[in-house]
This record gives sequence, structure tokens and C-alpha cells, in this order.
Amino acid sequence: MSQHHSQRRLRLGMVGGGQGAFIGGVHRIAARLDDHYELVAGAFASDPERSRASAAALHVADERAYPDYRSMAEAERDRDDGIDVVAIVTPNHLHFEVARTFLEAGIDVICDKPMTTDLGEARELQRLVESSGRFFGLTHNYSGYSLIRQARDMVAAGELGELRVVQVEYPQDWLATRVEAEGVKQAEWRTDPKRSGPAGCLGDIGTHAYHLVRFVTGLEVESLAADLHTFVDGRALDDNVHLMLRFKGGARGMLWSSQVAPGNENGLKLRVYGSEGGLEWRQEEPNELLFTPQGEPPRRLTRHGPGLGEAAMAAVRIPPGHPEGYLEAFAQLYSDFAAHLRARRGGPEVATHQRDIPGVDDGVDGVRFITRSLESSRADGAWVTF
Amino acid sequence: MSQHHSQRRLRLGMVGGGQGAFIGGVHRIAARLDDHYELVAGAFASDPERSRASAAALHVADERAYPDYRSMAEAERDRDDGIDVVAIVTPNHLHFEVARTFLEAGIDVICDKPMTTDLGEARELQRLVESSGRFFGLTHNYSGYSLIRQARDMVAAGELGELRVVQVEYPQDWLATRVEAEGVKQAEWRTDPKRSGPAGCLGDIGTHAYHLVRFVTGLEVESLAADLHTFVDGRALDDNVHLMLRFKGGARGMLWSSQVAPGNENGLKLRVYGSEGGLEWRQEEPNELLFTPQGEPPRRLTRHGPGLGEAAMAAVRIPPGHPEGYLEAFAQLYSDFAAHLRARRGGPEVATHQRDIPGVDDGVDGVRFITRSLESSRADGAWVTF
Amino acid sequence: MSQHHSQRRLRLGMVGGGQGAFIGGVHRIAARLDDHYELVAGAFASDPERSRASAAALHVADERAYPDYRSMAEAERDRDDGIDVVAIVTPNHLHFEVARTFLEAGIDVICDKPMTTDLGEARELQRLVESSGRFFGLTHNYSGYSLIRQARDMVAAGELGELRVVQVEYPQDWLATRVEAEGVKQAEWRTDPKRSGPAGCLGDIGTHAYHLVRFVTGLEVESLAADLHTFVDGRALDDNVHLMLRFKGGARGMLWSSQVAPGNENGLKLRVYGSEGGLEWRQEEPNELLFTPQGEPPRRLTRHGPGLGEAAMAAVRIPPGHPEGYLEAFAQLYSDFAAHLRARRGGPEVATHQRDIPGVDDGVDGVRFITRSLESSRADGAWVTF
Amino acid sequence: MSQHHSQRRLRLGMVGGGQGAFIGGVHRIAARLDDHYELVAGAFASDPERSRASAAALHVADERAYPDYRSMAEAERDRDDGIDVVAIVTPNHLHFEVARTFLEAGIDVICDKPMTTDLGEARELQRLVESSGRFFGLTHNYSGYSLIRQARDMVAAGELGELRVVQVEYPQDWLATRVEAEGVKQAEWRTDPKRSGPAGCLGDIGTHAYHLVRFVTGLEVESLAADLHTFVDGRALDDNVHLMLRFKGGARGMLWSSQVAPGNENGLKLRVYGSEGGLEWRQEEPNELLFTPQGEPPRRLTRHGPGLGEAAMAAVRIPPGHPEGYLEAFAQLYSDFAAHLRARRGGPEVATHQRDIPGVDDGVDGVRFITRSLESSRADGAWVTF
Repeated sequence: MSQHHSQRRLRLGMVGGGQGAFIGGVHRIAARLDDHYELVAGAFASDPERSRASAAALHVADERAYPDYRSMAEAERDRDDGIDVVAIVTPNHLHFEVARTFLEAGIDVICDKPMTTDLGEARELQRLVESSGRFFGLTHNYSGYSLIRQARDMVAAGELGELRVVQVEYPQDWLATRVEAEGVKQAEWRTDPKRSGPAGCLGDIGTHAYHLVRFVTGLEVESLAADLHTFVDGRALDDNVHLMLRFKGGARGMLWSSQVAPGNENGLKLRVYGSEGGLEWRQEEPNELLFTPQGEPPRRLTRHGPGLGEAAMAAVRIPPGHPEGYLEAFAQLYSDFAAHLRARRGGPEVATHQRDIPGVDDGVDGVRFITRSLESSRADGAWVTF
Repeated sequence: MSQHHSQRRLRLGMVGGGQGAFIGGVHRIAARLDDHYELVAGAFASDPERSRASAAALHVADERAYPDYRSMAEAERDRDDGIDVVAIVTPNHLHFEVARTFLEAGIDVICDKPMTTDLGEARELQRLVESSGRFFGLTHNYSGYSLIRQARDMVAAGELGELRVVQVEYPQDWLATRVEAEGVKQAEWRTDPKRSGPAGCLGDIGTHAYHLVRFVTGLEVESLAADLHTFVDGRALDDNVHLMLRFKGGARGMLWSSQVAPGNENGLKLRVYGSEGGLEWRQEEPNELLFTPQGEPPRRLTRHGPGLGEAAMAAVRIPPGHPEGYLEAFAQLYSDFAAHLRARRGGPEVATHQRDIPGVDDGVDGVRFITRSLESSRADGAWVTF
Repeated sequence: MSQHHSQRRLRLGMVGGGQGAFIGGVHRIAARLDDHYELVAGAFASDPERSRASAAALHVADERAYPDYRSMAEAERDRDDGIDVVAIVTPNHLHFEVARTFLEAGIDVICDKPMTTDLGEARELQRLVESSGRFFGLTHNYSGYSLIRQARDMVAAGELGELRVVQVEYPQDWLATRVEAEGVKQAEWRTDPKRSGPAGCLGDIGTHAYHLVRFVTGLEVESLAADLHTFVDGRALDDNVHLMLRFKGGARGMLWSSQVAPGNENGLKLRVYGSEGGLEWRQEEPNELLFTPQGEPPRRLTRHGPGLGEAAMAAVRIPPGHPEGYLEAFAQLYSDFAAHLRARRGGPEVATHQRDIPGVDDGVDGVRFITRSLESSRADGAWVTF
Repeated sequence: MSQHHSQRRLRLGMVGGGQGAFIGGVHRIAARLDDHYELVAGAFASDPERSRASAAALHVADERAYPDYRSMAEAERDRDDGIDVVAIVTPNHLHFEVARTFLEAGIDVICDKPMTTDLGEARELQRLVESSGRFFGLTHNYSGYSLIRQARDMVAAGELGELRVVQVEYPQDWLATRVEAEGVKQAEWRTDPKRSGPAGCLGDIGTHAYHLVRFVTGLEVESLAADLHTFVDGRALDDNVHLMLRFKGGARGMLWSSQVAPGNENGLKLRVYGSEGGLEWRQEEPNELLFTPQGEPPRRLTRHGPGLGEAAMAAVRIPPGHPEGYLEAFAQLYSDFAAHLRARRGGPEVATHQRDIPGVDDGVDGVRFITRSLESSRADGAWVTF
């Protein structure tokens, strides 16, 4: 449960997230929700005027509304009350340059996913994080859900036995027609290779599904076969992804992500089966985790309900039956990041349950997943070593 | 959807909600979530030391951590940067005195429910609000859910035809055993007539169910028959409530609230049936509203999904399929209150969808509901005119 | 599970159930499903020609297609291969006379519910069954569901502790408009006091809900308050029923049945709560029973799945996950009746799980429930001793 | 809805299905449920004594309890009142020989799936059916569900637009441990290549999933990639199946079937997505079909509820809300078969909705599916032309 905390709020800067953006607003709510941050600076848009207007609306002082991220990194680096951390919420193609710029300025980074559009850049960022010693948090926000933490702990504790089968899916329907040609801004950049990189649905949501599998099961992919497809005429990137996975140690998996499946809003769903039991979780009803010990009746574990472990209980704010959702899970990541950022600034040690958060290694792993999937798909769905 | 806003944040004070409290923390998150408020003052606990410790943890300046609500009202009234509004989050028995004190000091009020423990006090508060011209918001938070706004609008637009039957229930299980004797603080005051008033389950959650019916349907109760019961030995207040309702105009209803129903966490559920259709909504899955036009297949309306009206679309932050929950609904009320508070301070006119929010009249109505239900129950369940 | 059985099939006659009837066809499938009966005689309709046409369609020999039930009772009584049992599937007002006629002819009876339209007749039938020593089975078919048997056994075994609260509801929507004036035959007689008796929705489905409570919990009603209402203009009988119940021993309950609730097809649902746990079951998904031991995660018990007792396991035909439904539950009653009928004819003793089946005492109890509810409703919803 | 019918019952024989068998009992109930058949002959077991004992238990005359299927085919062929049709319910390896024997004796055949264990035999049976002009029905029973008929008609009518994505899954958990070594008869033959053929989970349930896709969508597979796996030590056949599918015309699909997924009883689920809408159906709640026209709220179509077409309405027995299940769907196939068998014997023409039933071509198609999947899996999951 959210704790009282007497340390000062962390000073947050933001790159991207101006008016009309979606994910920037989410990051801001997430940062605010548990009261660990205050937003004090930003380069919110590529157009300086729009950046200043956004700053004003967001209670950011005019002098810290920057026309571009480079001047922001420089200025904030030099201030005594400069930002503690920057949140990067631009389209994908800018993640790399912005992250590098701030890391090189000695500023900690929180970055949206996918980390980069290219495996080379991902690795370079990884090296830079290592060499700089800076903090790098990656917002694979679904790993912030309390019951996902519970699932992870149950797998780690062996409650499912030896893992055998993983089924993950992430269907949506908002790109079932060519809305990118009808002025839907979110659709425009997400279907544009220049801004999204070479992967469409795969990079946008397939990576979330992949990360969730990795986070919960700890399994490593050995090889995969991918069948990517674009169903909507005139679209440049994939909008439906079929994948078969073979994991090290022998488990098998399937991954489906789609943006053209009518009736699905944000249907991320994970099922994990082992020799001793099974787990099932759906993002659209995230306050419930179904657990079946083999040969026993399924049990409905609920957020903050009976039978949960420490990590799950630490990632909630309110009693069972009072649903928490997407923003709370996102906020959980921000709170976990805050624990790390504070520990680096002399605060208390990071609690166990906040230790394993998505970082630059997960970023590389996710970009590798995209890269290998594209390779397989280009080879007509052939199996590719991971 | 949450808007950019360039006005200053409203200055919020709080009475109650110190360490260990539940609802105070909820109010603070709710106030923070949409960024309309900053918490700047408080009398967080009856013990001055605990109040100051809470203030420090909450980034409230030491000089505005008050030892009691009376000194707070005085001091804040006299400051140039005094609070715009106070949130009252104490146990029920204090609501009346605290609210009166701040209203008399000319300070706007946000108050938790039930408004008072007594109908006379409720009416006095109503008169005081009228005579003072102050703002008074009551946190019947379930009315903040987007799809509850949608349900209300559909009923008002006649999509259900003439209303016939209302079924509302609010079962919980956390008081199924005598946890108030085992150190559970939330249970202690809620089962204590001195702090809760004469109603237990009825006042704690029955009033929420009642308000939700009123908010969505607009129906007025004509008479009711109540069968209250206490199942747990040694408990002073009711823990299970059965009610039959007759509404003006001929509709009929049933209300069940319970805190001793194992397997129910926070199962508020509303069903409304009219001559032309039916609606069903569950608080534990609040992102879905089931609507059946008579003779047609049921339709699953989703938060921010297709087919929603203006009021529902104004009470969301994120796209469909990204679940919003209890805290977001609570925050919605705070944002609606902010619109009113700002309009009073020269801000823009209150938007249509933010106009009808729970206030002092709903407070009186809710206390009347409690009073009449107790009267009926004491008369062995006889019908009582409302 | 359904067993191989080497005894001859029982010879079944039927009164009512000619072409266009609903429940007659259901009884025939139910009798056939587990292969314990063969239909050999009938007075299927009041019109002799229609009775014969129905007989032909049902493979019943022409000589055993009777013009009326009196001649049928006489003729079958006198045949060496006369029927073993008659199924009475007429509208309610005929149940009494037909049952009496066959009982007096020494023929066992299976009768649809409600048993009679009048408490005096119900008691007379009870006396006649006792004095004649004949078998009398009443088709409260919902008690044939495997998981209802399980629920009953769990309550009896004390798994819920001391019972506190019972919630039962049975909403439908097919009478939300005045379809009885539009040629819907099922609606015609069900809304006609001459054929249905003095209760509409109460007698048609309210009695099912009441019986289910009695069957599962064993609780006896001490007093009740009923608020019956007719919403559809021009309808002579109630179409919505609200009831509060007080049980002997202190438990409390609510019962709602409705035929004017759009979006509800056949929504019989039972919830039982005790000091140690809770149960929930829905007729529309009858292969699942939710069981929550207080303080533990809810468990999903499934038909034929893990954790079930002997009675539940005896009332299934196929493995878990292969849904059984309404007809199978109805057939279960017929199979239970067959066990009794065979035991009377020298067959094996009735198995434990088949012993407690709805009979003439349940019929009297159900008619008393109707009578007391009507009394209360006529007294403006006053409490009435049961 | 089930109709009155005045023709004589069809005379049914059975091969297999003696005491202890599962599917034989299901076929008998299915044949009985709608009253189109009477069971009059059988070779119920390989052991003549057990065959006779089963016959006695099933009310089959001793003289028609045959020691083996060859003598049964001969004797029944020569009787004036010989069987109209034989149901073959043996383990898979016998289907071919038994079917051939009866077809050559001029007797119509109903056969369980998969049709044969080998593509050569499947094609030979196809030729034999064509040359003999006999009826051949294959019990892909899931195609008997009313709402599956509805789904099929909606796809055919273009309500989903151009098909894009098909997701089908069929998980179970009953083989998660090595129960075939613990005396579970159903597991013994299903995991034994000698009796099941070369496919385990793939042949047992994967074929059902495949057929359901074909039946509902009409899509033809162009190529597939299969990753079959055996998770349980000591098991000779696959117990988990992952498949990616490419259909002619461009649609893509995934198929998962498993018998080692704890928490899944019989979780057959089909989802079909097109340019205009999506459909979702689950076998464990078969009375509901979710239909989402793109950009509109999802609609819950219910069995016999509003909005259904002729084929769906013809495949039900009872009103909406009274659940029908597995046995009713199985019975529907038997009733459809009966319509064909009767038309061949001078009965009325087969109704439109009963025309397209699974037959010998589907049998060949299903065995081809098994064969190609095994080929792909043996080639390490490479894509194989269908």
C-alpha cells in the first residue's frame, strides 16, 4: 500500500507529450498519482510555441518550457534545482537520441517503449547506461499491475511446477479501418515507419505482450516463427502478428497481437501453464487472477484479497473490490522508479518488491524480439534463433 | 477527457485523514489525479503531534499543520493564500461540526458521506449552505464513474421508457467476523455508534446504494419497508440491510446491503428496468454497462467505447480497454467540484455534464433515507412514508 | 453418472402437452434422455382430434390416445400393460382434478408445478397421496441440477457455517409487453387467472425460486412481506414480485421474480451466505458453482469437476467442460422418480442421493408460499406469519 | 424447434460403446433426445459376453447383440427390419474397417471422428461412399450448436465483411499427468498410437477445432506450420499443439489445442474477425455468441434470443435462458442425419438448415489436416502446403 513519505518530491522533466498526445498525459498522471514527482520542465513539442503553451497548461514555469530537448538537457544539467529525471514520451524514432542526450548530460531517464527502432541503437544505449551509471527505467506498464507481480512470484515459487505452455494475446480493433488517413493522430505516427520504426502492431503492442511473458515467467526465447501481416490496404506496417515460440528448457508458446480484431479494445491476456497448475490474467479485468492447481477447483485471486504475497500487496492503494486499473499500474512503475531514484540520492534502500523493474536490458531484449520477428516474417515465417 | 488547464491549482485543506486512515488517502489521490488541487493545510488528526507528522509526510508546510479544525478554519480564513476548500474525511460524527465551522468561516466544503448522523443536523447544514452561499460537495464517489453518467443520461433521455423496477445491492464480507475486536481500525469506528451514528452497514454502504439509485434514475422514494439485522454477536450496529422500496410514479425497488456476505468484496450493482429496456452495471467491473432494448440483443457499452454520450465521454482519461477504476471515479467528482469552485472564482462556466453533482440536498436526502429505514426496522419492518 | 440398467422401461402416460405446448415436450425429452421411460398413452389435448394427432406424432398407439383424462385413467388402470405413471403437464387449474383422478385409479403421478391453485386443494392432494400410498413427484426441475445437489450437501455439511442471508432472484423479460394479447399461447394461459390461479409471475417462477431456497438451505420461512405488482396495462395477474423473508432460526432473505425485466431471459440465481462461507449459482451458467470460504479466495466448482460430493457426481452424464443444461436437470428428476417407481415395483433400493426429491409436501409448501405472499401483498405488504 | 413428426423411428445399430465407454453413451443419448431413432442392434464390445451384457442393459434384443461387427453387418443386411444406420463409436483405428464393412453391406453410416488414422484410408472411404451412394455422417458434434449455425450464417451473409483473422483454441487439462498409466480407460486408448493413430491431442481435439473453423468460416487452408509437443514423460503421442495457418484468399489463423493446460476443462473457443466485424463463441457457455460490428458496441446474441436466423432457430428445443449444452448439440447432428436418412427413404425433403452436415469429405479434410500437421511438426515446424 502507498506509504506516507516525507522526502521531497522528485523533479521531473518531460520530452514530448504536448497537447493532443496520449501517452504523455498518462505519464503525468502516473507520476502524480502516488505523489513522488513534480513536473518542473519540459520540451513538450517540436514547435516552441506549442511547447510553451503546454507548459503553461501544466503549471510548468515559462523559463523551463524548452524549445527542444537538447537545450533542455543542457539547461537542466546546469541548474541547481535541475530535474532529477526526464520522461521520454515521443514517438519511437526519437527515443534513442533523446535518451542519449540526457544520459550524456548526467540525467536519469524514464523512457517509453519500444526503447529504440533498431537493435544497434538499443545496444548502444545499453552500453551508455552501463558506462554512465545513470538510471534507466522503461515503461512496460503492464508489469506494474499488482496481480502480475503476484503471478510472477507464484511462478518463481514453483506453484505452477515446470512451465510448459504460454499463451499470450493482445488484440485491439482501433486500426481495423484506415483511420490514419482520417486525421487520427495516434494512428498517424504509429503506422508511419519513419516515426514508429519497422514494426507496427508488433512494436506497439506485441512488445508489451512479449515483455509480460518474460516478466511473469522468466522464460527466455530460444527460437521463434513469425507470420506478420498487413490487412488494411495502404498501410505500411504490420497490423496483425502471429508467433510461435520455443523457450529454453522446453516450454512452448504462442503470441497473437492485432489491431484489426473488432470487439477487442485492449485485450492483453496472459495464460501460463505448468506441470502443477495454471494461471490466467486479463488486462481488462486486472483485479482478478485465476489460479488452478492441477486437479483442484480454480481459485479467483483478487487484488488485495486473501492469499496474496508481499509484492502484490505492496502494489496496491485501496481495498479489494475497489478496482484499480491502467493508471494505477502505470503509477506503480513510476513509484518503483522513484524508489530507485531516491536510493541513488541517499534515500532508503529499494524494497525487494521494487527491485526488478523494466530497464535498459529489457529494452534491448524487446528490440531483439522485434528484430527477430521481422527476420522470421521476411523469411516467410521460418524459425529463427533468438 | 482530461483537459489541459492553465488556471492555478486550487488550495485544498483537509480535516482528518492522518496516518492509518483509509478514506483520507483516497481523497488526496482523487484531488491530485487530474491536477486541479494542491494540498496546503490540514488538521489531520486529533492528536497535534500526529497531525504534524502527517503534514510533513504529505509535503504540507509545518505552519499549516493545525492541532484542530477550529484553529485551522480561523487561520486559513485569515490568510491571503488561505485554502479555497476543505475536505472533511473524519468519522461521521464529526462531519456536522467541522462543516459548520468552515462554512461559517466562509470556506467552501467537500464532505464525505453520510453527511451527518442525524436528520436535524443535516437540515441545519442545508440551511447554512443556503444562507452562506458556500459550495458544498458530498463525495458519493460512485456517481463519478463514466458509465454511471451514461446510465443517468440514458434514463433521462427515455431510452428505458417508463421506469418499473430498480434492483440495487451492495454486499461486502469484511465484517463477517468480529474484526472490530481484533484491532482493525476501519472496523472499529464503523461499528461504533458514537462515531458512526445509529446506522452501521446502512450508513456506510447502504447510503451509497441509495444515492446511486437516485442519481441514475431520478426516482423519489414514496415509502419503504426495512429489515435491518445484526448477525455478528456483540456488534452494536446493523450489518445486513434488506429494503423494499416504492417510488413515486409507481416504480418498485429492492435494496440489499451487507457486510457479512462471504465472497463479496465491494459488490455494488445497479439494475434498472423500464418499459423499453434495461440497464445493468457493476462497480467491480465499472468499465462495462449492459444495455438491453426490450426485444433486442443486449449491448455491452464500454467506457469511452462506441455509442456513449457527452457526459460519459467527459468523465474519462484514457482510451477504451484501459480500465479506469475507483480512484478515477473519485477524482472525477473532485474535478467536477473544481469546475464549480473555479466558476465561483471567475473561471469558465461549469460544463453541462459537471453541473449535477452530489451536494447538500443529497446529503439531507441520504440522512432521511437512513432515518426512515431505521424507523421502519424498529417498527418490525413496517412500511414507512418517506 | 448415468448407469447401464437392465430393467424394462417404465410405461409413461401424459395428460396435456399436445401440439403447441411447451412444457409437455420438455417432460417427454426429460423422460427419454436417460432411457427409463417409454411414452405409451396420453390425453394430450382437450380436443379429441388434436389428442390423436399428437399421439400419432409421438409414436403412441391410436388406441391409447384418449379423448380425456378420465377415460384414460380408467382404461389404463384396467390394462395389464397399463401405464406405470402419468405425467400431468396441463395448465395449473387442472392439476388437482387430474392428479386426484389418477391417484384414485391407483396410478402414480408426476405433476408439474405449482401443484394446485389453492391451498385447500393442495392439502387434499396431500391427504390423498398419504392415504393411497401412491408415488407423487413434483417437477421442481431446478433441483435436478448437479451443482444444486452439491450446494445442498455443502450447506447440510456445515461448510457455510450458520446460515445468515439468502438472496434469490428469478427475472425474465418475455412479458414486458402485453404479448398475451398478441397470440403468444404460453403467455395467454399464464396471465389468465382462470387457468393459472390467483398468482402470475409469483406462481410461474416465484415458486421455483422459493423451492430452490428450501431445497438448498433447508430453511423454513417464519414470516414474509410481499410487494406484488402488475406493470403491464390490462394484465390481470402480477408480473413482478418483491419479497422479504425471515427464516426460523434467524436467517433473512430476499426474493425477486419478474417477467418484465428487459435483458433477463431465465435468470434464476441463488446466493447463500453463512458465518463460514458463501455460495453462488446461476441457472443460465449451471455448470459452475462459486464457493467462498470466509477469508479465502473464491473457488469455482464445476459440474463433474474436482471437489464434488457423491450427490453431485451422481447427477451428471458427461465429463466436466461439456455443458449440461436445463433438459439434463429435468431428466435428472425423471431418473430420480424412476428409481422410486422401480423400488416400488421390486427394483433396487433408492440410492441416497435420489431420496430427497420434490413431492407432495413440497407442493403444499409451494402453494402455501403463494397463498401467504398474496395475503401479504393484499395487506399492502405487511408481514405475514407463514 | 423440435417438431412433431409422425414417421417411424429409424432403426439404429451401434459398433462399440459397451460398458465403460464414454462416447457410445453420448451417441445413444443424442440419438434418443429428439426421438428419431431406436437402438435395436449392436456389437458393443470385442468380447461377445460383454457385448451381450451391454445389449441387455440397453434394451436391445439378445438375438441382435452381435459378437463382432462383421456378423452384425451381414445379419442386419439380411433382416427385413434390419438397421437403417450404424453408429461407429470405437477407438479410431477401427473406424475404417467397420465403416467399409457396413457400407459394403449397403448400410448407412454415422461415424465418430477422426474418420480414419490415415489419409489413404480416408480417401478410400470417400470413394466407397461415392460409389455406394450410401449416407455417411461424421459426428463433428460442435457444429450442432445453434449459435455455431448462427455464426456460420452470419459469416456467409457477409456480416463480418472480408475475413482476416481466425483464432481457435481447444485446451483441456485431464492429461496433465500420466493418467493413462493409472487405469483411466479414456486416456489409455487416446494416448496409444495403435488405437488412436499417429496423432494424440491433435487427432482427439485439434480436429474438432479445425472442423469448427472450416464449418463456420468456409475458409480453406493454404499452408500451415505446426509445433507439436509431448510434455508428459513416457507419453507416445503429442499432448500440446501449436499451429499457424494461412488461408486461401489471405486470412490468417492460429490454432492451439492442449490436454495439459490446468484449469481448462473443455475450452473450445472460436473467434473470427473480418473487415466489418467480429464473432466470439465458447463451447463452455454455448448459449451466447458475441457479435461486434466494427465501431459499434458488442451485442450478446443468445440461443433462441432476438436477432437470430432460421438455421439457429431450427437447432433449439427450449426457450432462451434455458441452457442447452453438449448433448443437445450432439442430438442436433443426429436429427440432421435423420432428416437425410428419411429423405432417402421417401420422407420429406431435407430442410435447408439441415443440408450442410459433416460427412465423408469433412472426414478426408480432417485427416488431411492431421497428416499435414504431422508433416510440418516432423520438419521442425516448417510451413507445409495443405
